[in-house]
Amino acid sequence: MSAIADREALLFANEAFYQAFSARDIAALDALWSKAEPVLCIHPGWPALAGRDEVMASWTRILANPDAPKIECRAPRAHVLGDVGLVLCYELISGQALVATNVFRREGRTWKLVHHQAGPAPPPPAPTPEETPRPN
Amino acid sequence: MSAIADREALLFANEAFYQAFSARDIAALDALWSKAEPVLCIHPGWPALAGRDEVMASWTRILANPDAPKIECRAPRAHVLGDVGLVLCYELISGQALVATNVFRREGRTWKLVHHQAGPAPPPPAPTPEETPRPN
Repeated sequence: MSAIADREALLFANEAFYQAFSARDIAALDALWSKAEPVLCIHPGWPALAGRDEVMASWTRILANPDAPKIECRAPRAHVLGDVGLVLCYELISGQALVATNVFRREGRTWKLVHHQAGPAPPPPAPTPEETPRPN
Repeated sequence: MSAIADREALLFANEAFYQAFSARDIAALDALWSKAEPVLCIHPGWPALAGRDEVMASWTRILANPDAPKIECRAPRAHVLGDVGLVLCYELISGQALVATNVFRREGRTWKLVHHQAGPAPPPPAPTPEETPRPN
């Protein structure tokens, strides 16, 4: 796979994460997290979570909240380090910005999440033309 | 290198990072960050920084502050993913807790920092007996 295609696949996996999050689709979210590696997660203001059971339980709790606001991913930047992929991006939740580190591990032809940390941030940079949402 | 020695080396690099931070030793800090890979950094409440110049300039600015409080690393947990190492740990700064993700890349026999994110956290777990600081 070319370096560009590799990075595109990483951004695609990152986008799938935010789509599953926004759709409150726990099955889709579960499928995006690695089953081969121990997984980790730091939600804003939470302690560090470790292990698939603890991490997936946290997502189930977050997504079960019917008042959970929509989340939007902005300005993602992907970095491939061999078989590990890092995506740094902003998250917009009800007008508030967070900044996130998403760590993926290559598994076959896909990238699976192994770690997520999000924390408070200043507003993200303005979207570039390619990032501006197109009308459907 | 055995898996245990590998993880120990990763924890050692993580500890060196906090020692350089606490000693406000910018040369030691600089030496711990990768020169082979693009580096990234998210300080609490800052935008995501990318590239060695931007990241090292941020550390120079932080460490130049003579009132910078001491930082203490607590409850580090290391995870090796091939040639990438993740350390999750708490940071204690003037009694306030942060939680951090430190990402390292294997370079020869050492681990070099490629990414750091810290954000607000609840208090860390109580130190285990091995973690309790010994009198010098």
